[in-house]
Amino acid sequence: MDFSSFSTSFGTSFFVFVVLMLLFTWLSRKPGNSFVYYPNRILKGLDPWDGGSRSRNPFAWIREAFSSSEQDVINMSSVDAAVYFVFLSTVRSEQSFVYMVITALLTLFIVTFFLLALAILVLSGLVLLPVLLPVAATDDNVKIQKAKGNQTFSDIDKLLMGNVKGGSPRLWAFLIATYWVSLVTYFLSWKAYVHVSGLRANALMFPELKPEQFAVLVRDLPPVPEGQTRKEQVDSYFKSIYPETFYRSMVVTNNKQVNKIYKELEGYKKKLAHAEAVYDESKKRGKPEGLRPTIRTGLLGIVGRKVDSIEHYNEKIKELIPKLEDEQKVTLREKQQACAFAFFTNRVTVASATQSLHAQMVDTWTVTEAPEPRQIIWSNLKIKLFQRIIRQYVVCFIAALTILFSMIPIGFISALTTLDNLKKLLPFLKPIVNIVAVKTVLEAYLPQIALIVFLALLPKLLFALSKAEGIPSVGHAVRATSGKYFYFTILNVFIGVTLSGTLFDTLKFIEKEPNAIVSLLASSLPGNASFFLAFVALKFFVGYGLELSRIVPLIIFHLEKKYFCKTAKELKEAWFPGDLGYATRIPDDMLVFTIVLCYSVIAPLIIPFGVVYFGLGWLVLRNQALKVYAPSFETNGRMWPHIHTRVIAALILYQVTMFGYFGVKKFSFSTLLLIPLPILSLLFAYVCQKKFYRSFSDTALEVACRELKEIPNMERIYRSFIPPSLRSEKADDDHFEDALSQVSRVGSFA
Amino acid sequence: MDFSSFSTSFGTSFFVFVVLMLLFTWLSRKPGNSFVYYPNRILKGLDPWDGGSRSRNPFAWIREAFSSSEQDVINMSSVDAAVYFVFLSTVRSEQSFVYMVITALLTLFIVTFFLLALAILVLSGLVLLPVLLPVAATDDNVKIQKAKGNQTFSDIDKLLMGNVKGGSPRLWAFLIATYWVSLVTYFLSWKAYVHVSGLRANALMFPELKPEQFAVLVRDLPPVPEGQTRKEQVDSYFKSIYPETFYRSMVVTNNKQVNKIYKELEGYKKKLAHAEAVYDESKKRGKPEGLRPTIRTGLLGIVGRKVDSIEHYNEKIKELIPKLEDEQKVTLREKQQACAFAFFTNRVTVASATQSLHAQMVDTWTVTEAPEPRQIIWSNLKIKLFQRIIRQYVVCFIAALTILFSMIPIGFISALTTLDNLKKLLPFLKPIVNIVAVKTVLEAYLPQIALIVFLALLPKLLFALSKAEGIPSVGHAVRATSGKYFYFTILNVFIGVTLSGTLFDTLKFIEKEPNAIVSLLASSLPGNASFFLAFVALKFFVGYGLELSRIVPLIIFHLEKKYFCKTAKELKEAWFPGDLGYATRIPDDMLVFTIVLCYSVIAPLIIPFGVVYFGLGWLVLRNQALKVYAPSFETNGRMWPHIHTRVIAALILYQVTMFGYFGVKKFSFSTLLLIPLPILSLLFAYVCQKKFYRSFSDTALEVACRELKEIPNMERIYRSFIPPSLRSEKADDDHFEDALSQVSRVGSFA
Repeated sequence: MDFSSFSTSFGTSFFVFVVLMLLFTWLSRKPGNSFVYYPNRILKGLDPWDGGSRSRNPFAWIREAFSSSEQDVINMSSVDAAVYFVFLSTVRSEQSFVYMVITALLTLFIVTFFLLALAILVLSGLVLLPVLLPVAATDDNVKIQKAKGNQTFSDIDKLLMGNVKGGSPRLWAFLIATYWVSLVTYFLSWKAYVHVSGLRANALMFPELKPEQFAVLVRDLPPVPEGQTRKEQVDSYFKSIYPETFYRSMVVTNNKQVNKIYKELEGYKKKLAHAEAVYDESKKRGKPEGLRPTIRTGLLGIVGRKVDSIEHYNEKIKELIPKLEDEQKVTLREKQQACAFAFFTNRVTVASATQSLHAQMVDTWTVTEAPEPRQIIWSNLKIKLFQRIIRQYVVCFIAALTILFSMIPIGFISALTTLDNLKKLLPFLKPIVNIVAVKTVLEAYLPQIALIVFLALLPKLLFALSKAEGIPSVGHAVRATSGKYFYFTILNVFIGVTLSGTLFDTLKFIEKEPNAIVSLLASSLPGNASFFLAFVALKFFVGYGLELSRIVPLIIFHLEKKYFCKTAKELKEAWFPGDLGYATRIPDDMLVFTIVLCYSVIAPLIIPFGVVYFGLGWLVLRNQALKVYAPSFETNGRMWPHIHTRVIAALILYQVTMFGYFGVKKFSFSTLLLIPLPILSLLFAYVCQKKFYRSFSDTALEVACRELKEIPNMERIYRSFIPPSLRSEKADDDHFEDALSQVSRVGSFA
Repeated sequence: MDFSSFSTSFGTSFFVFVVLMLLFTWLSRKPGNSFVYYPNRILKGLDPWDGGSRSRNPFAWIREAFSSSEQDVINMSSVDAAVYFVFLSTVRSEQSFVYMVITALLTLFIVTFFLLALAILVLSGLVLLPVLLPVAATDDNVKIQKAKGNQTFSDIDKLLMGNVKGGSPRLWAFLIATYWVSLVTYFLSWKAYVHVSGLRANALMFPELKPEQFAVLVRDLPPVPEGQTRKEQVDSYFKSIYPETFYRSMVVTNNKQVNKIYKELEGYKKKLAHAEAVYDESKKRGKPEGLRPTIRTGLLGIVGRKVDSIEHYNEKIKELIPKLEDEQKVTLREKQQACAFAFFTNRVTVASATQSLHAQMVDTWTVTEAPEPRQIIWSNLKIKLFQRIIRQYVVCFIAALTILFSMIPIGFISALTTLDNLKKLLPFLKPIVNIVAVKTVLEAYLPQIALIVFLALLPKLLFALSKAEGIPSVGHAVRATSGKYFYFTILNVFIGVTLSGTLFDTLKFIEKEPNAIVSLLASSLPGNASFFLAFVALKFFVGYGLELSRIVPLIIFHLEKKYFCKTAKELKEAWFPGDLGYATRIPDDMLVFTIVLCYSVIAPLIIPFGVVYFGLGWLVLRNQALKVYAPSFETNGRMWPHIHTRVIAALILYQVTMFGYFGVKKFSFSTLLLIPLPILSLLFAYVCQKKFYRSFSDTALEVACRELKEIPNMERIYRSFIPPSLRSEKADDDHFEDALSQVSRVGSFA
């Protein structure tokens, strides 16, 4: 890619960004769009514009994002979001630090060795561009090499490390820069870990009551002894260990059936409300007596007898309510499973219980932290310890296969969706497909469509896989998904793109020397520098532009509002924002980080792009976290150790690549000086893991012992863990209680 | 080794054993020897002969050992000893099970394929010898091969697997036997793990009070905050977390100086008692006014002024008592270290505290189980977490070097102790060394003596290394030593002896094919079968004979009693038995187990030897545990997971060797059938680790919550942790207390 095509691409991206930002400024000031641009504020019960500042200047959101404190983010969103910003700002300042290479270390170096280069630099007024550029630019390797061939000479290539001649003493500057980048990464990620650890401690010692801090999840219960109920078994067990702090227990039931009925009932209630709204509207608009909406009772409401909707739904609801109540009773009595929640009156007891071995047989009475009620994956709770372990390995194996051979399912999908196959499978398409124009388009795009579908489905597939591991909470499953997706993007996008140009040519070469993969990767890096430069630019300008302007949710919201939503509930569903989506967002950011890191020395020009990516990201997402996204779970920053590990993984990839690259540059003796770096990184990772990790997987007791604002209302805490489908419809609300105490002796059903 | 030389060696061993056992029967009935043969009973305050059974039959101890229950062992010795017997009997019955190969699986096999062989077997009346012997014996590979060379043909070689021709279908019998041995090992070690886990649980829920169940060890304390003492810091920390169950804390001090003074004082007290006893005796024997013993005050009591001993020691004691008290105060006030013991009124709190993270920074306030007071290694307590980790790796590295290159230090010692060097270093020896006879003997034996010295010092060296890891208790250090010694014996004795005959011949062969080590080991196994047979026989006959008869302690005791001991205290010191010595005993047994396992299929003749070794061992050591050895620590069976791991390690070594051996036998296709075995073993180890391990490293809460017989006397528990050198000499005993509370504010000395 030469300079002109790069600048075209860059310019286009920038233009798109400017347009999208202007669009955002204009659209977000319209009152009708407040649900799209400020849903989180509305959900929190705040005024979207903070006191009528609609007439404020168009860039006020930037000022607001800058002036918001970490505590604001925690209050408006979650600790997880705050932790994410720590990551963004760490990475950003890391790259800025690296940028400071110029002023600090290398200037000295240059002064000594390259007075000429420095003079040119200063004179050119390029003080703000990395010193490495001139070091590279004043050499002329590329020029010579290109002159030999018949290629055109580009300006970007001149700024790369590739322009330095092999064996040149100028490579020392690059070697020192490699160390500098590593040291800055260590320093900043250490600082960030300390900071995040503090954030987590603060969140855990928060004086407001959090129900999950008073409950533990007990899995792998042994069989119920004769003559006891499951509940009695659990109660007597915990009472003997915690005679003073144990409150009560709740046995987890198999809710599949009751959930189904509950869902059906809720569906009818929604439809009833919709039908009533339609009826009311018709009264206002048309005849005063209104037009009662009708529905067909058959398949999808298209065929069958026509009936009055409101009456029909009312009947259905009347039918389902007693059915639900019966099913609730049956579920509570007879569908108890071998796991339970236990509630304690004390945070310290809960924190220490989750870390202690309870039974002499380690695979029974496994006590772990209770997830927040909203993020419990109920169907996973009953899975036994050894099954969980086996599932973990199986899932790990499947995920590894998916990541390594992702091209195979894509190929499979493509093969399935070739025209000939389509014709066979769906014969009614034949007449359409046979039109020449359609045929050409389809033949050209079907594989790409298959790829796009695969990439869109992949996070969902990975999430389903993570859930299949038997993980009890959504937050944890998201973490697991994020890990899998990270390795997918690094392998398929970064390494895939870098090698793909040279892969098939050099496959034979690798076959001969399997160790050559590192030097192959290293030698093909410079060729792709401008591609990745454009990639990062596209990502931040177009990606963040779309993120900020929220074009797609805006359109969907307005369409739904106009043509479908009749009730307030439906409207809320239309604008409800969802959460930040860590499962794909963090791996995407990590990909950019890895790219920038790996190119930071080879093509220092990429650093400002990285700084802009993470700076702009921080700004835009700060706005989104404060005003748009509503977190769907809170894990108190448990994501951080995973982010940290991957930062170190990216760093090691970078160090190994640099080692290979210096080898390619025939800087032989000094290349050996790079060997300590990966070892240092592993050591750093080990020390961090020892020093910090356990405080993320467990709750430190000194944190849990902080006093609460109020005496916890144990009854309310207990009730918050009852799944909605098991909550009683009646006002007295004692039905759950009764059902549990009425439960028959175990002999009859266990 | 041919049959006659083997039987000579076996006969000699057996003769020695019979003599030693008769000696034991005769000696142990003499009342004067009761201190040597029943010290543990005397220490426990029991009559050595259990009601005057001196006239009983000479083999009564065997009946007693058989009739003793596991509970007797726990009461008289320790849970660790009971666990050790579980190991012995498991291994014994494993080998008996393997022996059953005959009657169960292989008979069937033989009936089908080798009717002839079976006929010979039954006719020979060899029903009790393994079926594998005839399978081997009826083939004649060795005969043919030996006939080719000029070697003599021996009967033992005929009974080995080596006698089966390569590629013969008879090898199927050996293949199935290999599986049988593995399956029996899995089954029995699983059963033993369950049993030992129960033993540990019972020990931990024992209703008698054990002080260490009410204390935790807190290490890595952060610096003392300004204006607080160390004790206040610890107290306030634990009070806020455990407001109800925290009793008090004890800050660990640097006792080096005070220990020195205390030891000196105790030495003088002992000498005073000795001198007084000598004086009393002289009164009785000689003149009625007695002869006051004298001593010279100079070096070693040889030179210097002659003084009255009793007066001299009294003076010294008078001098030292105030010095000790001063030093105690100084120690308590100013030599406090960054670790402490915390005491709680509740076993559950202690059990859960040791498993919980206390501080947000994982490397501060590390809470672990308190060791028994008698086995605390005080000087290790202050070592910080990261230093402990580094020490662990360094020690691991040094130990690995020692084990792998143990021949180098031996060679070094030998080189130092050659005659020429000795002459140079110790010139006064010259005239003696130059005598021809002495010279010859020394030249021949010096290297062997060096080896013996090295082997005798090795366990001590390994124990010192393990202590240097920063381990807080003796029991743990013994476990660590035992592990290191196990790898040493396996590598140097088993693999070393097996390979040494062929090592130098085939070194070039290995250089060409490094993977050939397994097949080399396998192919050299049969040649050493008779050596190891003799080795095991020697071990059990001579080893257990010496163990039972206690010749060496007997002689030492009688010598000391006659020529030195004057006071009751000195006499007790002379007969005090020490403990079972797990650090070397278990690795030695594991070595025999590994040898028997590895030869079980290749030379099934070894199995009865193994059965006798472990059967006799069980019997003799049962007697010793009940009557002789006094345990010096109790870890409640924590040794077991280590024994289990090593059993599996031995099994994997066996499986890999068998794989190699079948390969050597050119049983190519079926050899592949052995590949699942090591994988199965690793899986088995993993499952056991997951299911049981944590209940050995931690105390399960359901176990800790059992009620105690009595309300714990917290003051007594607290006092039991005060090291003897810091205990007050005065009756009121409040000095420790006072010194702690008088401690000056931290600003002055921290």
